[in-house]
Amino acid sequence: MITKYIKVKTKGNSDVIDITPELKTILVDEVIKDGILFLSIIGSTAGLTTMEYESGLEKDLKNSFEEFFPHKKKYFHNSTWSDDNGHSHLRSTFIKTNMFVSITDSKLDLGTWQQVVLIDFDTRPRERTIVVKYVQS
Amino acid sequence: MITKYIKVKTKGNSDVIDITPELKTILVDEVIKDGILFLSIIGSTAGLTTMEYESGLEKDLKNSFEEFFPHKKKYFHNSTWSDDNGHSHLRSTFIKTNMFVSITDSKLDLGTWQQVVLIDFDTRPRERTIVVKYVQS
Amino acid sequence: MITKYIKVKTKGNSDVIDITPELKTILVDEVIKDGILFLSIIGSTAGLTTMEYESGLEKDLKNSFEEFFPHKKKYFHNSTWSDDNGHSHLRSTFIKTNMFVSITDSKLDLGTWQQVVLIDFDTRPRERTIVVKYVQS
Repeated sequence: MITKYIKVKTKGNSDVIDITPELKTILVDEVIKDGILFLSIIGSTAGLTTMEYESGLEKDLKNSFEEFFPHKKKYFHNSTWSDDNGHSHLRSTFIKTNMFVSITDSKLDLGTWQQVVLIDFDTRPRERTIVVKYVQS
Repeated sequence: MITKYIKVKTKGNSDVIDITPELKTILVDEVIKDGILFLSIIGSTAGLTTMEYESGLEKDLKNSFEEFFPHKKKYFHNSTWSDDNGHSHLRSTFIKTNMFVSITDSKLDLGTWQQVVLIDFDTRPRERTIVVKYVQS
Repeated sequence: MITKYIKVKTKGNSDVIDITPELKTILVDEVIKDGILFLSIIGSTAGLTTMEYESGLEKDLKNSFEEFFPHKKKYFHNSTWSDDNGHSHLRSTFIKTNMFVSITDSKLDLGTWQQVVLIDFDTRPRERTIVVKYVQS
C-alpha cells in the first residue's frame, strides 16, 4: 500500500473543489492499471463525495446545505466554544470524510459527468490535506 | 484484485433495487471466504447504501428524498441545461455512489434485515453498471 | 486480511459513541504502521461517521436527525410492522453503516478534533457489533 497526499487551498464556506485531475495525476504517475484509491480528508468540517461538477449544480448543492444546516441558526457547538462553524461540522458528519474510487484499465471508474469533489464547509479559507492510499493488483 | 460487474435495469425516479442476491452470487461463484467487496456505481444520479428492504420503508425513503430534494423545485442545474434531474444529482451527492461490504466465514457482514440497495434517482429508466472489486485473504 | 470485532453497549435513540479509543487499541495491539481499517456495523438502524466529539455538537446532531426524520412522524414502516423505528431506519440509510480509516506512521489519519463515532438510531438499548477488517502494507 502506497500513500500519496493531495494538498488543496480552499475558500471555505462550502467551497466545492474538483479533485479528479489530481487523482488522474496519481493514476498516471504511479502507473496504476487496476486498483483502488482510498481517500480521507483530515478534519471534521469538510467532506468528500461525487457530483457532476458544473456551476448550476454547485449553486443547488450550496442551497441544499444552507437549507438543511443554516449558517446563522443557533447551535450548541457555537455557544459552547464561541465558535461559528456548528453548521460546518454537521454538514461534514452527513457527507462524511472518506470515500474510494476504483480503477479499471488505467481509468477511474467514474461516469463522464461524475467528478470527485472536496467540499470545505469551514467558515474561512483553509489548506486541506487528502490522504490517498492505493492498492493495485 | 478481481473485477466483476453487476448490471441492473431500473425504472428511475428513486427506484430502489436490492442487489444483495447479486453480491451473494459473486461470493459463491468466486468462493470468497474472507474479504471485502468494493462497490461503485457509475454515474452522478444514483446511490448505494443499505436498508431493511421492505415496501413500507421503501415508501418512507422515497418520501424523505422528495421532502428534502423535491422533483419540481427550481434548480439552477435544470435551468442551465434544460434538464429535469437537478434533484436526482443532489440525492446522489448526499447518498454517495460507493460503499463496501465485508465477508466473514463465507457470508456478507450484514444483519438479517439489512440489504444492499442501488437507488436510481434519475428521471427515466436506465441500465446501471456497478463495478465490484474484491480482495480476499 | 485480519478481522477484529468491537462490541459496544448503547442506549439507543441516536446515542453517539466515540469508538476512536477502540480503533487505537487495535492499531497498537496489531502493530499496524501503515494500512486501512474497514468498519462495518451490522444492522439497519445504526450508522458510522466522524465528528468532533463534544457534547454541544452531539446535541446539534441529534436535533438535526429529529428535524429531518422525526421520531413521532407517521411512517409506512411503523404501520406495516407495528413498529416504532421507521425514523431509525431512515437515519441509518442516510448516514450509512460502513466507512474506513487509514493509518500512517502508526497513527489514524484523523484530525485532532475528529473522532470516529457509532450512532445507534434504534429506540432501545442494544449491544452492537462492528466488524473491523484491516489490511496493512
